[in-house]
Amino acid sequence: MYEGAVQDLIDELGRLPGVGPKSAQRIAFHLLAADETDVRRLAHVLVQVKEKVKFCEICGNVAEDVQCRICRDPRRDLSLICVVEEAKDVVAIERTREFRGRYHVLGGAISPIEGIGPDELRIKELMQRLASGEVTEIILATDPNLEGEATAMYLAERLETFPIRLSQLAHGLPVGGELDYLDEGTLAQALRARRPIA
Amino acid sequence: MYEGAVQDLIDELGRLPGVGPKSAQRIAFHLLAADETDVRRLAHVLVQVKEKVKFCEICGNVAEDVQCRICRDPRRDLSLICVVEEAKDVVAIERTREFRGRYHVLGGAISPIEGIGPDELRIKELMQRLASGEVTEIILATDPNLEGEATAMYLAERLETFPIRLSQLAHGLPVGGELDYLDEGTLAQALRARRPIA
Repeated sequence: MYEGAVQDLIDELGRLPGVGPKSAQRIAFHLLAADETDVRRLAHVLVQVKEKVKFCEICGNVAEDVQCRICRDPRRDLSLICVVEEAKDVVAIERTREFRGRYHVLGGAISPIEGIGPDELRIKELMQRLASGEVTEIILATDPNLEGEATAMYLAERLETFPIRLSQLAHGLPVGGELDYLDEGTLAQALRARRPIA
Repeated sequence: MYEGAVQDLIDELGRLPGVGPKSAQRIAFHLLAADETDVRRLAHVLVQVKEKVKFCEICGNVAEDVQCRICRDPRRDLSLICVVEEAKDVVAIERTREFRGRYHVLGGAISPIEGIGPDELRIKELMQRLASGEVTEIILATDPNLEGEATAMYLAERLETFPIRLSQLAHGLPVGGELDYLDEGTLAQALRARRPIA
């Protein structure tokens, strides 16, 4: 509907996840009205991210070096690994300041529908990290959905033979929520995992 | 929370309208996983849009030339002008295939809250277009909200002295809606503007 460059931009923006045709148009017109330096900076960081960002050779997290910031940090507990699906999960757990070990990013979860099996995930790399015997504890922190649970179950089975402590994030009531707004699944899990008090 | 380039990208994406921190993160990780050529193409069209896109010297619409596609089109009726707020309104009206005149893009609407008065809009340019006497009809197609109505009323007053037919888009029931889902304002307008049948 628009002339050349504007339509090209709307088309490209519309390919981004969560950006529909209306949002793409809105963003395009915002950029048309924006300072040229701002738009050039956005174009620059787009190219930079592809040129600079690599994936950590140890854990698979995003990194600007051969290893990520966390794996390079000597204060991290080398005996403890938290297994997550994506790099953004690393950030979520880091935000809690509750975990002092290192991570292992699988790169997704087992999903037959999307054609993702164990071989598409960084599971072989996890096994290799366990070979040295340095790791004594693994926390499975996959998403609390069908794919995440399937992945956790698969990993639990694969890790059975290793002399390590294996745990999974607790399921239950989210902090700050209201009971009657919770789905039955969460409530059922919270009931089953109920803790004795005093 | 992320290392250099990833965080830079998330920050820049987060500045776009309608893109919150979560969407920015999602888009950034999508781009991290995307083909480098796709990301470079997006960066390229961003720069292109600033380099190539200009605003039509006649109507103010987006254009890749001194004049836009519509103003250059000799089949367009030069005696008829449709006044709209933004370039995206031109596209909306073009889609109806009901209008064969030319446009005048104001560049916004009168909004005291945002500090936009008549002088910030392309009203002077509209008056200049009327000077030649070629234009005999003007349709006001500003948004059906407070700012749009204020702009239409202001224009109606300014255009009073010209020997032209002046009209405004009809208010009423939107096609395909359900009566009981409509707001009182629309319903009241539809009642007031009721048409006799047969």
